[in-house]
Amino acid sequence: MFQDISYKPIGIIHTHYKDITGMPIQPSGADGVSGTIILKPELTSGLKDIEGFSHIILIYHFHLATGYKLEVTPFMDRKPHGLFATRVPLRPNPIGISTVKLLKTEHNVLYIEDVDIVDGTPLLDIKPFFEKFDNRNCSRNGWLDNNRTLNISEIKSDNRFR
Amino acid sequence: MFQDISYKPIGIIHTHYKDITGMPIQPSGADGVSGTIILKPELTSGLKDIEGFSHIILIYHFHLATGYKLEVTPFMDRKPHGLFATRVPLRPNPIGISTVKLLKTEHNVLYIEDVDIVDGTPLLDIKPFFEKFDNRNCSRNGWLDNNRTLNISEIKSDNRFR
Repeated sequence: MFQDISYKPIGIIHTHYKDITGMPIQPSGADGVSGTIILKPELTSGLKDIEGFSHIILIYHFHLATGYKLEVTPFMDRKPHGLFATRVPLRPNPIGISTVKLLKTEHNVLYIEDVDIVDGTPLLDIKPFFEKFDNRNCSRNGWLDNNRTLNISEIKSDNRFR
Repeated sequence: MFQDISYKPIGIIHTHYKDITGMPIQPSGADGVSGTIILKPELTSGLKDIEGFSHIILIYHFHLATGYKLEVTPFMDRKPHGLFATRVPLRPNPIGISTVKLLKTEHNVLYIEDVDIVDGTPLLDIKPFFEKFDNRNCSRNGWLDNNRTLNISEIKSDNRFR
C-alpha cells in the first residue's frame, strides 16, 4: 500500500516566470498571464475535444521544491498553519494544481492564461474543469476567512520556500 | 526535464467501495457517502487548522488503473473524447482529484464525506479548498454542455476501465 509511485511527465509548462520569487501565488492572482504547454507529441490525440472547455486543471510537479516542514506560514497569512491546511509548495509529495484558462490548442501545444507556474515545470496530468462538478459553496474557508480583505493580485511569492 | 518522478503515499483512503464498478463517478454524485483517511502518524502535525475548512482537495493514485487509451468514452457520455478532455482513470499518470467535505479530524484520521474513491486508495496530497480561488465561472464545459439533463447521482461506474 505504501510502495513508491512513479510518474513520467506528459509535457512541460512554459511561462515567463524564470524564478520562483515575485510570482503570482494563485491563478486568480495571475489574471491574464499567459503560458504554453508542450505536450509530448505522442499524446496529442488525447487533446481531442479539449478546446470545448474554457478551463482546465493542471496537475504538475514542483520540481524546484526540496524537503518540507509540517508547520508553515503561507504567503497569504502571517500565522503558521499545518502544511495540509495550506498550498505551500514544499510538501511530502510536491504536487501542484492550478485551474487555468485554455485559449486554444495547436497540435501538441496548449495556449493557456492565468498561469501561476514557474517556467520548465513538468506536467503530470490535464483534466477538464466542469463547473457543475468542481465548484463548491463552502461554509468555511479556514484561516482565509480571517483575511477577507486579501487582494490576491497584490501578493507575490518571496524566497521563503526556496 | 522528463525524468521519472517518485512519490510515496502520505496515507490511505478508506471507503465502503471495495470494487470499482457501481461507484459514484464524482463527489457530486456521492452525496453523503462517508470515508476516512488514515494519514501516516508522523505527518499528523501537518493537519493543524485543517478543520477550519469545510472542503479539502484530495490528490490520489488510481492504484487499480493499468494502461491508458488516448480516446475514451466516459461514463457521462456516449461519444468518445480525447483522454485529457475526460476524467477517466486510465491515464498516462493515473492521478485522481476529488474535492470532499471534511467532517472532523482525530489525531491522524480525517473523517470525510461525498467520497467517490475506492477503498485502499493511496493518498498523495491534501490541499485546502478555497472557495474564493478554486471556483470558476466557465463559459464552456465542453461535451458536458451537451448533456444538460445529466443527473450525476444516477450514473455509476461500470467495468469499462478495468
